[in-house]
Amino acid sequence: MSKNVYAFGGGSAEGRVEMRNLLGGKGANLAEMSSLGLPVPPGFTITTEVCTHYTQNGSVYPEGLVDEVNTALAMVEDIIGARFGDPDNPLLVSVRSGARASMPGMMDTVLNLGLNDETVTGLAAASGDERFAYDSYRRFIQMYGDVVLGVEHHNFETILADHKDEHGYSLDTDLTAADWKTIAAAFKAKVEKALGEPFPMDPHEQLWGAVSAVFGSWMNDRAKIYRRLHDIPEEWGTAVNVQSMVFGNMGNTSATGVCFTRNPSTGENAFYGEFLVNAQGEDVVAGIRTPQPLTLAEKDLGHSNLPAMEEVMPEIFGELCDVREKLENHYKDMQDMEFTVQQNKLWMLQTRNGKRTAKASFKIAVEMADGGLITKEEAIKRIDPAALDQLLHPTLDPNAPRNLLGKGLPASPGAASGKVAFSAHEAEELAAKGEKAILVRVETSPEDIGGMHAAQGILTTRGGMTSHAAVVARGMGRPCVAGAGDIRVDYQAQKLTASGQTVNAGDIITIDGSRGDVMLGPVETIQPELTGDFGILMSWVDEVRTMGVRTNAETPEDAKTAVKFGAEGIGLCRTEHMFFDPARIINMREMILAGDEAGRRSALAKLLPYQRDDFTELFSIMKGLPVTVRLLDPPLHEFLPTKDEEMEEVAQAAGATVEEVRARAAALHESNPMLGLRGCRLGIMYPEIYEMQCRAIFEAVASVSNDFGKTVVPEVMIPLVGSKKEFDILKEMVDRVAIDVASETGIQLTYLTGTMVELPRAALRAGEIAEGAEFFSFGTNDLTQTTFGLSRDDSSAFLETYVNQDIFEKDPFVTIDQEGVGELVHLAAERGRATRPDVKLGICGEHGGDPASVHFCQTVGLDYVSCSPYRVPIARLAAAQAALAGAKQKVVA
Amino acid sequence: MSKNVYAFGGGSAEGRVEMRNLLGGKGANLAEMSSLGLPVPPGFTITTEVCTHYTQNGSVYPEGLVDEVNTALAMVEDIIGARFGDPDNPLLVSVRSGARASMPGMMDTVLNLGLNDETVTGLAAASGDERFAYDSYRRFIQMYGDVVLGVEHHNFETILADHKDEHGYSLDTDLTAADWKTIAAAFKAKVEKALGEPFPMDPHEQLWGAVSAVFGSWMNDRAKIYRRLHDIPEEWGTAVNVQSMVFGNMGNTSATGVCFTRNPSTGENAFYGEFLVNAQGEDVVAGIRTPQPLTLAEKDLGHSNLPAMEEVMPEIFGELCDVREKLENHYKDMQDMEFTVQQNKLWMLQTRNGKRTAKASFKIAVEMADGGLITKEEAIKRIDPAALDQLLHPTLDPNAPRNLLGKGLPASPGAASGKVAFSAHEAEELAAKGEKAILVRVETSPEDIGGMHAAQGILTTRGGMTSHAAVVARGMGRPCVAGAGDIRVDYQAQKLTASGQTVNAGDIITIDGSRGDVMLGPVETIQPELTGDFGILMSWVDEVRTMGVRTNAETPEDAKTAVKFGAEGIGLCRTEHMFFDPARIINMREMILAGDEAGRRSALAKLLPYQRDDFTELFSIMKGLPVTVRLLDPPLHEFLPTKDEEMEEVAQAAGATVEEVRARAAALHESNPMLGLRGCRLGIMYPEIYEMQCRAIFEAVASVSNDFGKTVVPEVMIPLVGSKKEFDILKEMVDRVAIDVASETGIQLTYLTGTMVELPRAALRAGEIAEGAEFFSFGTNDLTQTTFGLSRDDSSAFLETYVNQDIFEKDPFVTIDQEGVGELVHLAAERGRATRPDVKLGICGEHGGDPASVHFCQTVGLDYVSCSPYRVPIARLAAAQAALAGAKQKVVA
Repeated sequence: MSKNVYAFGGGSAEGRVEMRNLLGGKGANLAEMSSLGLPVPPGFTITTEVCTHYTQNGSVYPEGLVDEVNTALAMVEDIIGARFGDPDNPLLVSVRSGARASMPGMMDTVLNLGLNDETVTGLAAASGDERFAYDSYRRFIQMYGDVVLGVEHHNFETILADHKDEHGYSLDTDLTAADWKTIAAAFKAKVEKALGEPFPMDPHEQLWGAVSAVFGSWMNDRAKIYRRLHDIPEEWGTAVNVQSMVFGNMGNTSATGVCFTRNPSTGENAFYGEFLVNAQGEDVVAGIRTPQPLTLAEKDLGHSNLPAMEEVMPEIFGELCDVREKLENHYKDMQDMEFTVQQNKLWMLQTRNGKRTAKASFKIAVEMADGGLITKEEAIKRIDPAALDQLLHPTLDPNAPRNLLGKGLPASPGAASGKVAFSAHEAEELAAKGEKAILVRVETSPEDIGGMHAAQGILTTRGGMTSHAAVVARGMGRPCVAGAGDIRVDYQAQKLTASGQTVNAGDIITIDGSRGDVMLGPVETIQPELTGDFGILMSWVDEVRTMGVRTNAETPEDAKTAVKFGAEGIGLCRTEHMFFDPARIINMREMILAGDEAGRRSALAKLLPYQRDDFTELFSIMKGLPVTVRLLDPPLHEFLPTKDEEMEEVAQAAGATVEEVRARAAALHESNPMLGLRGCRLGIMYPEIYEMQCRAIFEAVASVSNDFGKTVVPEVMIPLVGSKKEFDILKEMVDRVAIDVASETGIQLTYLTGTMVELPRAALRAGEIAEGAEFFSFGTNDLTQTTFGLSRDDSSAFLETYVNQDIFEKDPFVTIDQEGVGELVHLAAERGRATRPDVKLGICGEHGGDPASVHFCQTVGLDYVSCSPYRVPIARLAAAQAALAGAKQKVVA
Repeated sequence: MSKNVYAFGGGSAEGRVEMRNLLGGKGANLAEMSSLGLPVPPGFTITTEVCTHYTQNGSVYPEGLVDEVNTALAMVEDIIGARFGDPDNPLLVSVRSGARASMPGMMDTVLNLGLNDETVTGLAAASGDERFAYDSYRRFIQMYGDVVLGVEHHNFETILADHKDEHGYSLDTDLTAADWKTIAAAFKAKVEKALGEPFPMDPHEQLWGAVSAVFGSWMNDRAKIYRRLHDIPEEWGTAVNVQSMVFGNMGNTSATGVCFTRNPSTGENAFYGEFLVNAQGEDVVAGIRTPQPLTLAEKDLGHSNLPAMEEVMPEIFGELCDVREKLENHYKDMQDMEFTVQQNKLWMLQTRNGKRTAKASFKIAVEMADGGLITKEEAIKRIDPAALDQLLHPTLDPNAPRNLLGKGLPASPGAASGKVAFSAHEAEELAAKGEKAILVRVETSPEDIGGMHAAQGILTTRGGMTSHAAVVARGMGRPCVAGAGDIRVDYQAQKLTASGQTVNAGDIITIDGSRGDVMLGPVETIQPELTGDFGILMSWVDEVRTMGVRTNAETPEDAKTAVKFGAEGIGLCRTEHMFFDPARIINMREMILAGDEAGRRSALAKLLPYQRDDFTELFSIMKGLPVTVRLLDPPLHEFLPTKDEEMEEVAQAAGATVEEVRARAAALHESNPMLGLRGCRLGIMYPEIYEMQCRAIFEAVASVSNDFGKTVVPEVMIPLVGSKKEFDILKEMVDRVAIDVASETGIQLTYLTGTMVELPRAALRAGEIAEGAEFFSFGTNDLTQTTFGLSRDDSSAFLETYVNQDIFEKDPFVTIDQEGVGELVHLAAERGRATRPDVKLGICGEHGGDPASVHFCQTVGLDYVSCSPYRVPIARLAAAQAALAGAKQKVVA
């Protein structure tokens, strides 16, 4: 029988921080803090394995669990010197979830457990505060009633409101001990009426009810959505932490707070946090009262005019500073801690690695490495590549005119503009239509997760830096301004008012999460700063990684951006995009409408100069870096018009009748264009098209051959190859055109000819295809489509259901399916190398910019990944992390 | 240096029959006949390796070839006692192709080579017939001019016609020696004028010219098309046979003929052949003169009223009968022989295994096995499964009224009706439109191959049983009536006249190739006879094969036909076909148009009784044989109407507006339906559909459970599975419905649940899918589409080019691509068995009825193949042959 319960407290613990998978993050850290001698309220953790057992066996617990819990509970009783259910000196506990990865607010919590009609008197006696005891009791009944028994909050709130009305009270603080006692009784009666049985008085029954509710909440919808958004597998399960209660609401010598060892927003090495006097912990996170700053320094920055903890509780603050130093040195990472002060005694309730903005993560990693706390390699590992995205996009121009509506807390950095949406649902609807939304709420709750994800940014009018909105927004990398109190939101009227201006739902506003500004209308942006901590860390990254990083680009703008972001070449230049320019599409259509080869050649001759100029410009920007040019790929009908007026236009320009254009379009129609006449099949059927493109490439190389020191070595890529013969026929064509251009220009041409590997058959036959092909570029978008038999365009109808039902762990178009598509990539790489040990291998599907997929590419030993320009730094970082993770190194003879 | 030339003649030979790959069929058999002591004109064979060398090295011969040829030539000269180029006693030779597989009429031949202005006088002296000598000379110039020098036939024919007009001659026989001399001179002058250089007089120059022309003809278009139709690889190459000439046209003691050791049409063990007195061999095959029968027995059958060889040349006939016996006993197979009689001396020019009709092949194989000449296994190997097709289809009802237009020779058995097409091109056009055509020609030539293939049957008005039309039609399995001389064809007017009736192009006629009848209009048919030789041999087949054979069927008619043909179960019952019935499609559309699950369930409830009845009927027909039912597979939009009036109808029936119907159809539209919401994805999205289908299956099983001795064990097949999870979710649903039906009916249900393997990912993940799946059925149609990224519906635009350019050896939708798709099948079988050693494996793509693919299935060790009803016997035979070929036996623990 395995051990299911791990106790902690009193300066020792059965668990360790390394047991995170078993104990969850909170439980492992409570154990670790306890072992470090920090003041942790004693308690115990029921493991994640119990959760899995409970979930998979119809809510049945493993044998022996009750005994283990009772043993641990007895130990807690001994340390605290109070007994569970003892009317004179009762032990009260909290019951909280604690998963392997933090899932703030997603699962259930029950506080003050152990109170009943008898023990409440004991609490009153022990605290010397009857009002506090009955307030705690009614809070417990409400929370337990809601979370465990399913009697919703509003039932209780109505009773409280009615009571206040009856007695003419306006604030909760107006209520006396007697009032709370009456209300607690009314709450109990309400539960009994709703359920048909009385509220449980037995603390053990209460305990098991709460534990089951927490385990059960692992499978609630909110938790499922959060896991999906954060790639947390269902199998992980959650642990349950049962811990003796400490109270931050026992008067003005009590308090509760949250703090970070460094600033989570900027990364600055300054103690940072918030607290509330005479409050329970949930009050800080819920954002109901605006919290006070921890330090005077913070107060001096002008973010608050409330007294700092440093001034009101200097001694406790000093103790907390010691804890800060001890924990950061122990964990060697920035910590996010929760504490409670109960009648001048500090208790540590939680520590964990703190979430931080991308900008802060760079500063913290670089400073810790410079300070010797961690190595450079460790610093690289600390950055979340996915979070990097927010750093790389344009930010608001500080000099641009701003129509300021109001100010709030700079809760999550970055800027965003979008239409005002007053509900999560509306934000999701706008996003579904491809529009940008800013979610505006008084405060957010876990139900809003979907809308927060769909929105470009979040604005709340209440709550602090650690409110739900702020924490979740930082985790998601969404800009957020929190607690902008001078903005008034009217959900009913679907408008907000601020600075005398009214903004309706659907109007555009801009928020600056780095400064806390809220502005009317859009604001001009500037390019991101790529120097400083970012530049330093990325230079370490480049020393470490073994894979190259290229970009997918065909426009000069994209190519320039990518070079600035550190791209080492172009991995995919899609030549068809070059034909959509209005000046060219006419010739393209003329080519397609031509009835014979001669007609096509004549139209292609007009396209040649355009395409040659495109390549010349790209080669000039890339200054000798490799450029992989993919020959025409999409079906020709994609270039034809579909609307009547366009048809007429084309007919006129091409000297054909509308009927001819329509007939040709109809003849080119395909049932499954994805699997039709496209890619190299076009090159086989109409060799003159590829000939023109190759000519354009080689003439462009010739024209820039003296422009810079390096030789331009283009890589000609033949798409959609499924067999050696297709490749060989087209390679012969490439070689023939190269010989022609070389002899016409007198320039010696060096180039590679290779293929996309984007069909299962190409992967299987890679060995023989590599006889001719000098490089493979894995086109994992199409390879995913064909391996799954899944059209990217059509899968949206069921993809969400598939992800929700865990059929797909992740959208396979975002993160490569390692088991299926990945096996084909592996196999193609192996077979290709067996034939041609130095065959150059890369990836140019959109997976090239996805960190998990980049990691996979390292295990396959690819030479490079290629991704969109803005993802180049992400790919560089992911490649370095993959190299550090000891992923199999490239095997090249 | 390898040996390039193999000599034969004079009772011995350097080659042997086993050297067919090197010497070609003709060369190997000439060598073998020579070794057997048969009278073979001496000669030598230049190997197929020389052809490959010549083709791949820019028409250059291997070193030393000239010396080898000269040595062999000297040997021939010694045996014959005549010298090449000797004016007094010249050796003349024929130069013919001879590939590994017979390709009648596809490549070039040159006869009488060695004649020039000097040697012609020697030939005149040696034969004592100056007219014969100059006739031979002009024939040589014409043939060499056409074949080697490229001066086309009509140039020479014009000269001959002009000469005849000038002198008032009507027949060739009117011309004298002097006339032929003049004409030979005119032919030479024509060649010199056309080419600017004289006709070659040097016999060695002539020889090498002819050899190169024959090798070159391996790559001509006709030969390429023939190879493609007959699956002959280009790499095989052809050999060239140079053989001393013998003359069947040296007066009335000379003759030439073709004979078969048994009747190639019926298989009867009777000597059978045709000959012409005073003629060269090509005259028989070309069908210009109607030939005489070989035996009196044949004459007695009334097929000819010309004198038989048995009566006009009894001694030679006796010698030929000895040769017949010797060769059939030696080769142990029916032989097709060519002979020439030169002035009362018999010469054997060729022997080969004779082509035969499917019916004849059964009779010959069974009789030879019964007679002990071959084993039963050998008999099985002798039948060409592809040729079987013609035996299995309905034939004309002999009692049905026939409007007889005329009679010809029963050249290739079977009956066919179709529209009259007077050119190969028209026949192809009709076929392309999906219409049936009968190709009607005076005679056919190799240029007509494409049209013969496209047509349902062939009718010629000239030529015998061994004419081009007859030979090719038998090879293709097309019914053919040849030499129907009382039918007049007018190409110009696009009509034929016979029995006083006129038939225009496009009118329907029927031909009966087994009787030689040609009829106006269609004629009623009867089902094929499956007893007799066919029944005997198929019973041997069933003893030998190790794979089961099932059928793809969903209608009662198909199921009954398949059972009659020996199907051992249903391998694929496509349930969607059951919904297209007008009475049901309305409910199906109602289901699709329903906005929610409740609406769908209500429509499905109406479909349930239909579907249950369908299954009940199928199970009753199959009487306990296994039935694999595939749950709904196609995208729902396939069931929706596309035309406006249909839309209205559906709207009315479904109680919806036309706009709603249109909107729903639009919402269901997919860019690539092949890769969209279909197969098990429907089952995941709309579980109620699959639930209804499973209920129908299980209720049907319950309803027939007492009808016959065997339990009905349905196999429920889930289509388009790509991952274990999909399968598991749906298997759980199947099990749930089974439990419900079992408890409702009180009948114990036994069933299997399995999946189609039709996606590359399913093949790759077969190991884990087999944890739940009890069987795999390879859906190789879709697996081919996804592995190649090739839509079957759209590939016709380029498939022909791909086959012509040898990118695809064969259409991968007809014969399984062993290298690509086949590897996935192999891998899935291996991984599936590793998980579940007894996982049942089958194939239900159309490849299941293709002999080459069946052979592949044997190597993979599948349990069964499944194919369309009419292909069941083909699959049985192919499976037996595969088992005999020693293909790897099934490995099942």
